[in-house]
This record gives sequence, C-alpha cells and structure tokens, in this order.
Amino acid sequence: MTSAPNGYPAEAEALEECTKSFEELKLITDADLTKPERKLLKKFKKEEEKAAKAAEKERKAKELEAQRLAKQAANTVEVKELTLNDFETEKFGNLFIQSNKKTGRTWTTINSLSKAKEGEMVWIRCRLAKSRVQGNKMCFLNLRQSMASVQGLIMGKEMTLFAKDLMRETVVDLYAKVCTVQEPIVSCSQSDVELAVERIYCVSKSDVLPFQIDDAARSDAEFKRMMAENPEEKPVEVSQDTRLNNRVLDLRTPANQGIFRIQSGTCLLFREILTKNGFTEIHTPKMIATASEGGADVFKLDYFGGSAFLAQSPQLYKQMSLMGDMDRVFEIGPVFRSEKSFTHRHLTEFVGLDMEMCFKDHYHEVLDMLDQTFNHIFKGLNERYQEEIEAVRQQYPFEDLLFQYPCLRLKYSEAMKLLREKGPAILEEQIAQIKATTNCPETLKNKQAHLESVPKHGDSDDISTEDEKILGEVIHREYKQDFYIIDKFPSHFRPFYSMEDPEDPTYANSYDIFIRGEEVMSGAQRIHDSELLLKRAKKCGVDLGPIQGYVDAFKTGAMPHAGGGVGMERVVMLFLGLNNIRKSSLFPRDPKRITP
Amino acid sequence: MTSAPNGYPAEAEALEECTKSFEELKLITDADLTKPERKLLKKFKKEEEKAAKAAEKERKAKELEAQRLAKQAANTVEVKELTLNDFETEKFGNLFIQSNKKTGRTWTTINSLSKAKEGEMVWIRCRLAKSRVQGNKMCFLNLRQSMASVQGLIMGKEMTLFAKDLMRETVVDLYAKVCTVQEPIVSCSQSDVELAVERIYCVSKSDVLPFQIDDAARSDAEFKRMMAENPEEKPVEVSQDTRLNNRVLDLRTPANQGIFRIQSGTCLLFREILTKNGFTEIHTPKMIATASEGGADVFKLDYFGGSAFLAQSPQLYKQMSLMGDMDRVFEIGPVFRSEKSFTHRHLTEFVGLDMEMCFKDHYHEVLDMLDQTFNHIFKGLNERYQEEIEAVRQQYPFEDLLFQYPCLRLKYSEAMKLLREKGPAILEEQIAQIKATTNCPETLKNKQAHLESVPKHGDSDDISTEDEKILGEVIHREYKQDFYIIDKFPSHFRPFYSMEDPEDPTYANSYDIFIRGEEVMSGAQRIHDSELLLKRAKKCGVDLGPIQGYVDAFKTGAMPHAGGGVGMERVVMLFLGLNNIRKSSLFPRDPKRITP
Repeated sequence: MTSAPNGYPAEAEALEECTKSFEELKLITDADLTKPERKLLKKFKKEEEKAAKAAEKERKAKELEAQRLAKQAANTVEVKELTLNDFETEKFGNLFIQSNKKTGRTWTTINSLSKAKEGEMVWIRCRLAKSRVQGNKMCFLNLRQSMASVQGLIMGKEMTLFAKDLMRETVVDLYAKVCTVQEPIVSCSQSDVELAVERIYCVSKSDVLPFQIDDAARSDAEFKRMMAENPEEKPVEVSQDTRLNNRVLDLRTPANQGIFRIQSGTCLLFREILTKNGFTEIHTPKMIATASEGGADVFKLDYFGGSAFLAQSPQLYKQMSLMGDMDRVFEIGPVFRSEKSFTHRHLTEFVGLDMEMCFKDHYHEVLDMLDQTFNHIFKGLNERYQEEIEAVRQQYPFEDLLFQYPCLRLKYSEAMKLLREKGPAILEEQIAQIKATTNCPETLKNKQAHLESVPKHGDSDDISTEDEKILGEVIHREYKQDFYIIDKFPSHFRPFYSMEDPEDPTYANSYDIFIRGEEVMSGAQRIHDSELLLKRAKKCGVDLGPIQGYVDAFKTGAMPHAGGGVGMERVVMLFLGLNNIRKSSLFPRDPKRITP
Repeated sequence: MTSAPNGYPAEAEALEECTKSFEELKLITDADLTKPERKLLKKFKKEEEKAAKAAEKERKAKELEAQRLAKQAANTVEVKELTLNDFETEKFGNLFIQSNKKTGRTWTTINSLSKAKEGEMVWIRCRLAKSRVQGNKMCFLNLRQSMASVQGLIMGKEMTLFAKDLMRETVVDLYAKVCTVQEPIVSCSQSDVELAVERIYCVSKSDVLPFQIDDAARSDAEFKRMMAENPEEKPVEVSQDTRLNNRVLDLRTPANQGIFRIQSGTCLLFREILTKNGFTEIHTPKMIATASEGGADVFKLDYFGGSAFLAQSPQLYKQMSLMGDMDRVFEIGPVFRSEKSFTHRHLTEFVGLDMEMCFKDHYHEVLDMLDQTFNHIFKGLNERYQEEIEAVRQQYPFEDLLFQYPCLRLKYSEAMKLLREKGPAILEEQIAQIKATTNCPETLKNKQAHLESVPKHGDSDDISTEDEKILGEVIHREYKQDFYIIDKFPSHFRPFYSMEDPEDPTYANSYDIFIRGEEVMSGAQRIHDSELLLKRAKKCGVDLGPIQGYVDAFKTGAMPHAGGGVGMERVVMLFLGLNNIRKSSLFPRDPKRITP
C-alpha cells in the first residue's frame, strides 16, 4: 500500500468505496474514472496542494530564521552574568552586587571630573541617561549622577553592542579614562572632558520609563523655544500628577535634586542657628488625646479601643517643655491638618520648624531670634547651595529673595495703611494686564471687587490671602524687601493664648512672618499666667477642659515666653519662588493624594 | 422709763403684769415681792447676766483683733503689682511681664557664677526652690536654674516677709551681689558663692505642688541612707505614674534636665556625622495608604472618608528616596507602633533615627558608617555633655558605656556559639544570687529553664530577649565591650527584602546593633532587583500588591544599598543605663498613656 504524499493516511477514507492509490488514479483518464474514484482523486489533489504550501512555508521560515540569526550574530554579543568575584575577567556584562567581596576600587564622582584629571583612569557608578550608536563600533553615552552629567565614549563592536541595548536610567559601573575634548559638550554639565570607557558593567537594568527625565526636566522657556523652532513636534509635557505618581523617577531631575538638598539645608541651617543660641531640640508626641486647637481639621485615629488625634501643631507641648525648665526649644517634625484645601500652598501633612523660647522683658527678644534664624537660613542657602539653587533656577526661573537683618517690621496698623494707600495702584496694573491678555471676566470681576475693598481696609480688619499678596508686592516695590514681619495683630483674630498689647488691648503681642507676600509663620507672646489664660479662654469661648495639662503647666511658676512655627515646605517653596508646595514636599499629601 | 442694762427693752414684757423697774424691784425685800414682781426680777437678773457675758466676749474679741493686727503689722508687707514700667521704684513686688518695655537689664546664669565674680551685681531669673526664714529679718533662699542652684540671702524685714510667702517653684527676678562664703554650701551646685539679694520680684507664683522636686530628684541610695538615719520618717517616693501625670514639674529635676539635653545631643551628633559624610536629610510621610510591614501593630486613621495608616518605619520611603538618586539619606522622625506591650523598652510612639545609603561593593561599607555614627554619638556625648551625664548619674547611677571603633562584630553563628559556651556560667551565677536573695520560685524556675535551653541554642535558631541579655553580659565580660554588631542573621527570620548571603543562603546580609545586651537597630542590604524582590516576597508569602510603588522604585535602575533605623529613646536609655524607656521619652506614649 502506498501512502499519500507526506504520509497523510487518506486511504482509510477512500478505501470505503475505492482501493486505488493516488498514483494509480492519476494514470486513469478522466472519462474512465468512476464517481468514487473521481472524488478520491480530487481529495488526493487537495492534500497534495496543502502539503506543498506547508513545505514552502517551512522553507521560508527557516530562511528568515537563518537571516535573523546572521543579523543577530553581527549585532549582539553574549552577555555574561557576573559577580564581584569574577567581573574583572570581562570588559562588560551584568554585574550583580550581592556583597561578595570588597574590590578596593576607588570611586570618582562625575562632579569632580575636570581637565586636571586628564589621562586618569576612574571608576564611576552612574545612570546611563541616554546612548547613541554611531556605526556599529562606537557609542556615545550621556552619563548622569544627581545634577552632574558627562559624556562617555565607547569604542569597539562588542562593548557598543552591549551598551546600545541598555535602557535609559540603567545603573552602570564604568572604568574609563578622562579625556579633554576639542569642542565643548553642551548637553552635559561637564563640557570640557569626556570619558573613554574601557569597561562597562550593568549593575541594575531599567524597564520602560513612564516618562523621560528630559521631558520632566524641561523649563517652560525651553518648551516654548522648541515649539517655536519646530511647531509640528510638540515636546512631551509631564503633568504634576504623572510626576507625583512616579515620584522616584521624577526626583531624578536636576531641579528636584536641587530642591531636596535645599530642603535638607533649610533644616540644617534652622537647627544650626538655634543650637548655637542655646536651644534644646525636643520631640513632642504626634498622637494626642484631644484635638488641640479646636475639633475641626484634625485627623482621628483608633487608639487601643479608644480614640486619639494627630497633633496639628507642637505648640502646647513646646510651651510645656519650657515650663519644664528647658528655656529654649525647637522641634522639626510632622504636622497634620485635615483641611480639605486644594490650594498651591496647603498640604495635609507637612514638616513644622517650630521654636519657643523664654524671654526676659519683651517678646521682641524672640522676634529678633526668629529674624536671625530666617536670615541665617536664607544667607546659608545662598552661600552653601549655589549649585542646587542654579539647578532649580534652570527649570523654574526665579528672582533672588530680597532680605536683610533686621528685617522690615511693620505694625499691623501700619501695614494696613500701606495696603490702603499703595495697594490700589498694583491692582490697577494687574487689571490692565488681565485686560491686555486673557481678559477673563471672572478674574477681572474679582480683581475689581478687590480694588474697591482695598482702600477701605480698616486698621484692625482681618487680612485675606489676596490682601497679603498685594501687600507683599507693595513692600517689594517700596522697600525692596521680600522678607518682613507684621507685628501687633488685632487680638480679636488671634488665639486665646496670645498676650494682649499692654498699651492697647485691641492688639496682641502677636506677629506673622512673610516671604514674598505669603505668610509662613504665626507667633505670639503666650499668656504665662494661668488665671489670665482662663479669663481669656472664657472670653473667647474656648473650653480648656480637654487641655487641662496645658493650663496646669502654668500653675507651678511660669516663665514669660513666645515662639512660632513655620512650614518647612513653604519656606523652601517661597525661597525658590516655586508655584506649588507639592514641588517642595518629598512625597506630598493632600486630601486626594496619599500615595506613593 | 429706765432701760434694762444695755438697753434691753425688757419692760414691755414685764408691764403686762407689773410696771416696776429692775432698780425698784431690787430695793424690795424678797418676802415682799408679789409673784409677778418675783418673776420679773428673775427675768431682769437673767438679762443682766447675759448682757455681761456678751460684753465680756466683745471685749475679748476686740483685744484679740488688736493683737492680730499688731502681729500682722509686724509680719507682712504690702505687696505691689508692678510692670516693667514702674518696678524699679520698688525693691520687691509682683512683676507681670507683658512686654511693656525693654529694661536693658543684663542677665547672669546661676551656672556662670564663681568666686571670680565676687562683689558683682547680677540680675538672675530663676525658680525659688525653697526658702527658710531665720528670725524675721533674714531669709535663706535656694535658687534653681535647670541643673544649677545657688543660695540667696535676704536681709531686712520687709523683703523677708515678702519672700517667705512665695511658694516653692515660684519664678523670681533677683538683683543681687555675688558673695563668697566661708563654709561650702552643700545643698547647692554653687558651693563657693551665694547671692546677697537686694531686689526680688515675683514674676510668676506657684500653686501647691503635686510633689516636691526634692522627692522626685532623690536617688535610691539617698533614699536608703535617709531611711537608715531616721527609720521613723520615710521620705516621700514619687511613682513613675505620678511623675508622668505631672511631667512638666517632673522635667525640672536635675536628672531630667540632663536626660533631655543628652537626647537633644544624640540627635545633633547623629546628624553631624552623617551630614559630614554627605547624607541628605529627608522627611517622609507618616500618613500612608497601606500598612507598610504587615497589617498588625499599625494605627489606622480616617482620611477624608477613607482610611490611612501611621508609618511604622520610614524604611520603604528611605529606599525610594535613594532610588530617586539621593545616594545617602537620613531621617529623624516619629515612628508609630500599635503594639500592646508594657515592657520597659516599648513605646507606641518613638523617635526613629534612620539612615539608608547606597554602597559600591559590600554592605559592610554601610555597617562601617553605622559603627562610626554610634561611636561619634557616644564619644560626643561623653565629651560635650559631661555635666548632664553627671546630673543623671547622681540620681540613676550607671557604669560608663564600653565602646570602640571599629566595634566588636560577630557573625550570628559565632555569637550563638558564645552564648552556648559562656552563657550557662552567667545564668548559674544569677540563679545562685536569686537563691541567696529573693528566692522567688517563679524567677528561679524561668532561669533554670533558660539555663537548660542555652547550651542547646542552634547556630541559626532565633534569639530571645533573655538570650540577648545573657549574650550582652558574656560580651561585656569577655570583650569588655557594651556596643557590638551581630552580622549575618539567619535569613528565615529576617524580612523578605533582605539580601541573602552570597555564600550561604541560610544567612542574610543582615545585622543587628546592640547596646548593653539590648537590640537597638536592625538593618540589612536590601534587595535592589525587582525580580528578585518579587521572588523573595512570594517565598515569604508577602503580598506586594499594596506596596507597588515600592516595587516599582527598583524597576528603573536601582543602586545597591543598605541601612538601618534605631529608636532614639532606646539609645539614650541604654547609654545612660536607665531602667525604663519612659525616662528617656519627653511625653511618653504607651497603650495606656496618651496624656499629657
């Protein structure tokens, strides 16, 4: 019995009615075929065609695979999996760091490279920000380490093939020679030197990125320039939310590297000046039994079957520490506000820079200390964080803060007079500008209403955020200052524990500190007499029952004292002229954001 | 009509039956009196007696009042209510500080007084710790300012009368002359000089105290000495709870003044060494979306209609910050643990000193940094806080911590061998001591069980708190060290993110740091490869879903890194050899305490 081509067991079916093979049937002329024979022949022919097609398909696939392999052989290399025990035998590969041993390699930072190091061999661990292959034997690398970057150059086929497959943001170990370049490299912070890479190891590979660092690092001006140059190709814009959803990646932009070192510096400088002036650092509880300053805006938590609250301020505890004879205290710690605010300047959790100190005669002793503290921070940032400031400015341009010691200090009534007299001109300017640009009817309406109210602002009327902004602009123009204190606030909108002005009880020994027209700190001389405290609380309708421990603190001999607290993120935001507090909070929290 | 003596209108009644007066009736002999006359006479006589008694009483009262007034005139003075505007006209009085003006007074601290200042006039604001009147023209004052005290002497009747009525802990302003003394004053820290007080103003008066500072400041040894000297008069003991309920007052003892300055110093030194080594300070969120390390022991809070949790550790965020290219970070911030523990070393809220750093080859680079950090803290405290340390030691005696750099480092298996071999001898000693003293059956039973188990402790068995204590004692005796690191913990009881030892996966690149036999820090090389992390999490049965942001942080190129976190209160407690963590927490929190 003959098999059908390619061994199809077609006979079984045909046998029912006909026992002839395909070969036999092909020899019979068409007219001599019986009906079953014709049917069987047709089936055989169909099977033959099908088999031929399959064979052709297989042949083509084999050919393509051979081509693919040939191409791959030309463009890839075998990548070895290495450890610290054996990596030195290879010039490239994947290096998994599991603390196998100490290699004794001496490490260099990109920032420290310079022409002076020409010819030196260096080890650098950094990110591969970008790579660009030229031909198939040369590859340009853009290498990044925090705010610094340098060009790397790979020569040779194998290493080029290895490098070109590494995704952006991959962590690499490089062994390279420092070379000076003829033409300055504009795309890197190191424009005079590049690295001739002799060895490259992938320490940790990167997946596909949710956005590119370049896109996240672009300034508005650069964006506009690119749009003007090539209107067809709009550069990618990375939204605030996308950034925050991928905060780890977002933090790698030079501006963010700068912002968070400046944040660190702000805390360092705050502590530095206060420590130097005899302050003790304290840590007060964040879980407290009662909503310290009124029940609103406070987070409630389960506490072993009962309830507790998150501290909205360390103030009462700061004061209690002073009454415990600590004389001068400061605290840096989280502050929690359950406010449903979505403004550019509100967070539900922020870092409080708090201080409180005993004074001898006058709360201005404390105000002087606060003034010194802010001056020390501003001056220290300008002196020690120049590089970071410039990295921020590159992406978010801003004018240097105008400040001096002692800072400009105005009484509340004087400030209101200034607002009344000089505010309208600024509002008129703003209105003219709105008319000339967006002409947004609602904005215009608001501004015009504001313009009407400002000249009528009373000496002891409450001040709105908009008023504060206008006043900030007035002071910026009139006094060339962006940092100032407004003293002697009207007592009717200050907390019950604020000491009244001895000369005029309409006002309190209470102050706010401003940066660029935004309030950053509220403070006051606190009432240190428990009887007076009870009297004031009664007058203000505050129930002291839940904070009896606080009241009691003043019953066993109390030192006169004053203090204040400032939001660290606000200070950083306003020093750098940023437009949103989320930019100066590492992992910001607002009513809608609690991750990452 | 004649009136009854003292004008009693007795006639009206008698007239009903008899119109004779008392005088007339007295002239009639008894037998001649009619019945009504006799009755009336009796009544008159009674009234006369009553009137006489009343007169005598009144006379006596007047006499007493005259005496009282005379006495009062001799023993009190009129106390004036003063402000900074007018206080200089008086040598004593109540001075209310409302920031009326700056007086320009130059202030001196008690601590800075010395024989060299003899004859100088000084202004001092301090507490009146005690006063003792001698005669009625002289009063000895014990004046206190934090840990320092000095004797004050008031001469003259008026000021003595004023001073003797001031309660303990009252805040006073003194103007006094520095005088050397013949006999050293043993009751004050200033034994060579005293203050001859010329002016004294009460700045803030004290109420009755819940306990006396002297009683709260007494050491056990002093208590025993007093008991031995006078067994009838047991000195007052102030319980831990009474202290904590009145923490503000409790904080004023010299030991507490010392403890909280040392606490401040611990944070300062931690930051100092890390900042010097290129670390950036970060502030990570305390409100997080998911229970970071397992659902147990975590505080839950309401977050705008949803839920959030309090961070049990900043670890995941520290690591994420490193992946955001921050290279080396530290954080000082609150850590929350909802553990129902009532031990001497657990709090529900404590201050975490956390660090995390990228390393190049080996996690021992990080271990070296940690070792340096602890050494810097211990050395710094010993050098800069000698006075505070002695103030603590005075009340709570302790032996100086034995430490060195590099510290003693043992592998876990080596430590277990030491425990097996040298532990039993220590337990036998302890058992002998129990037998010789309390002979408490339960303690004995526990110790004997421990003695049986210790020689069988396997190389990779988990270690109990009791084992740790015994091991600490072994190391103290064998190596004369109280600070040491145990490295290469068995991987099966370390968190999923710990990197395995490349040579033996039974162990992990994971370590604990100990002070005086108590663990203060756990740390490890963390897995920086997202695939390996997923594999390990699966093996350990950890669901990474809720911490996707953490896993993602390692997907865009990750630096090898390690770190650790330490409870600040534990470091302070163990450095000072204190017996309870509540002593080193400013306002401690445990499952039963959330106030003050």
